[in-house]
Amino acid sequence: MQAPLLSVSRRTRRTPFTDRVEAAGVQAYTVYNHMLLPTVFESLEADAAHLKRHVQLWDVSCQRQIEVRGPDATRLVELCTPREISSMDTGQCRYSPIVDEGGRMLNDPVVIKPDADRYWVSIADTDIGLWMDGLARGMGLAAEVEEADVWPLAVQGPRAEALMQRVFGEGVRGIRFFRCGRVAVADHPLRVSRSGFSKQGGFEIYLDRAELAEPLWDTLLEAGRDLQVRAGGPNLIERIESGLLSYGNDMTRANTPYECGLGALCRLDKELRCIATDALRAEAERGPRRSLTGLRIDGGPVPVCREPWRVTANGTRAGSVTSAAWSPDCGTNVAIGMLECGHGEPGTRVRVEAPGGSRSATVCHLPHRG
Amino acid sequence: MQAPLLSVSRRTRRTPFTDRVEAAGVQAYTVYNHMLLPTVFESLEADAAHLKRHVQLWDVSCQRQIEVRGPDATRLVELCTPREISSMDTGQCRYSPIVDEGGRMLNDPVVIKPDADRYWVSIADTDIGLWMDGLARGMGLAAEVEEADVWPLAVQGPRAEALMQRVFGEGVRGIRFFRCGRVAVADHPLRVSRSGFSKQGGFEIYLDRAELAEPLWDTLLEAGRDLQVRAGGPNLIERIESGLLSYGNDMTRANTPYECGLGALCRLDKELRCIATDALRAEAERGPRRSLTGLRIDGGPVPVCREPWRVTANGTRAGSVTSAAWSPDCGTNVAIGMLECGHGEPGTRVRVEAPGGSRSATVCHLPHRG
Repeated sequence: MQAPLLSVSRRTRRTPFTDRVEAAGVQAYTVYNHMLLPTVFESLEADAAHLKRHVQLWDVSCQRQIEVRGPDATRLVELCTPREISSMDTGQCRYSPIVDEGGRMLNDPVVIKPDADRYWVSIADTDIGLWMDGLARGMGLAAEVEEADVWPLAVQGPRAEALMQRVFGEGVRGIRFFRCGRVAVADHPLRVSRSGFSKQGGFEIYLDRAELAEPLWDTLLEAGRDLQVRAGGPNLIERIESGLLSYGNDMTRANTPYECGLGALCRLDKELRCIATDALRAEAERGPRRSLTGLRIDGGPVPVCREPWRVTANGTRAGSVTSAAWSPDCGTNVAIGMLECGHGEPGTRVRVEAPGGSRSATVCHLPHRG
Repeated sequence: MQAPLLSVSRRTRRTPFTDRVEAAGVQAYTVYNHMLLPTVFESLEADAAHLKRHVQLWDVSCQRQIEVRGPDATRLVELCTPREISSMDTGQCRYSPIVDEGGRMLNDPVVIKPDADRYWVSIADTDIGLWMDGLARGMGLAAEVEEADVWPLAVQGPRAEALMQRVFGEGVRGIRFFRCGRVAVADHPLRVSRSGFSKQGGFEIYLDRAELAEPLWDTLLEAGRDLQVRAGGPNLIERIESGLLSYGNDMTRANTPYECGLGALCRLDKELRCIATDALRAEAERGPRRSLTGLRIDGGPVPVCREPWRVTANGTRAGSVTSAAWSPDCGTNVAIGMLECGHGEPGTRVRVEAPGGSRSATVCHLPHRG
């Protein structure tokens, strides 16, 4: 089925990069944190192939930065996640599941500590700032929670470092993975981290002055001509191949971090302040009832996975596929799914009820492609 | 500019009605509360004209019902809104701004009291359940907050009552505005209220069993053939004409209820538990700095308002237009905007910086069309 049209309005917020994204020929968006997120330029397949060979600029402004500051800032972030926060260095980033009191996933942001007394929670698609603010107000914490005027621009792909170095100098090479550094645009300092929602390497630039968006975009495009830089976005094929999870797709509030394969991030051996510590300890002891895994689905290209596809093993319900795409590089359909315990062993043969008919599939490890 | 395509996934949730909506020829969606909301079938203008003469079925499943229950349920809802809640009758609905501690708008839901010990907060497009849950957990309240498995179907238009009566019997005529009643579908009782996001009259049916969605849809379509019933959705033209506000478009967290013309709903004369009572009292005393109003914009049809359009009066900044559309019935462009105090007087002539050039406009009362 052809994709439907998207009605845009002020509510589906534009970003400081949107005019450039449109000029670059964006074909489709999704709406993410009430904001436009470009998803397709040439085609999913062509965009993936380009991303894996060259370098792309991604308008990921929708990765909103929830700024937490004040004397109780660390305590508030610790309340929200089972990941250890107090040991973070200034300038460090940590992928940190956020959970409710029952240990259910509310979001899976990267928590950034740009300064000693401040956090940026770089969020997936739920208004988790409302949860954090509500909790802070209910507990009377001295912590402010606010969506910052920051619009991240990702530079992704194997030539990302080369491009960044040309524009911002040798210094960017010294920025380690999931660490922040600084670059300057028109004499204005911007934070940058080595990170991004692909496994092709790259950086995220935290633009905090809207009027610099187009100069920044244009400078990177111009400097990277011979590197074949172009506009892109988080790519469905590449992220499934790489085993990158999407909140709302691969997991929801119905799931725990253990089900999502994030148990190792839950530092239950530490003195945690997380409000879900008891629930997560019980889950850890019990063991998760299901878990995310890879699947390879036989046959020709599958359609878009618009709702979970039922998975059966020997005729009984075994779970569901949550994301799927044809991977030209793997020569098969790659998928992510949530399977009940006992069915998630790599090599297990299952059936997937995809649109257009039942298909055979094989459970496999993530990532599909390292 | 042509509307872009929408990339759909599990994260942009389908509803139990989506298959029928697609079969009815939906052309465009928006994403609202992480869910598909149909916006256009024939065209905005044709859909509006049909809505005002006949009757439409609207899949407004995205009006998620946040269920609040438990001994502290009333207290929690009261904490969140300056509207009086304790005096609500069972079966009553109240449009209730939800505000943060500073008295800023977080959402503008209809609060429904389906039972004596339970509320449904029928929400606009923010995850306000996260705020309510965070607040409840932070305060240790005995209140559960959960997104209910309820998918509202709106029946809207001047022939809505006739259609509902045919299908559900004479009883529906007795349901008063913003009150709930009951109807039965395949012997399953469903709540219904006389309400909806148009001023053409109608009902909202709170479907709580997904497998009844298509029988319900088909029954209404079949019974209303001679009433020319068809699929529709909240209509941009009709809602602006009617002065119905859209959270995220006409107001955001930057605004107070007073700025949104909702001051009369803030019962500061009562003993309120709302956490924003002090902030709202101060705002009421000070008077809002700006306020929502109607505007009529001269010239031919305006394009879609994708971001606020600057409004000036005698060359100085006066505010912005937040929603606009060509109204065939008014013979002009109708709009909603937020104007600084001193510029909002009906009859005031202003300039609007719309895409394609500056236009003259006249401030007017809302609704545009009663």
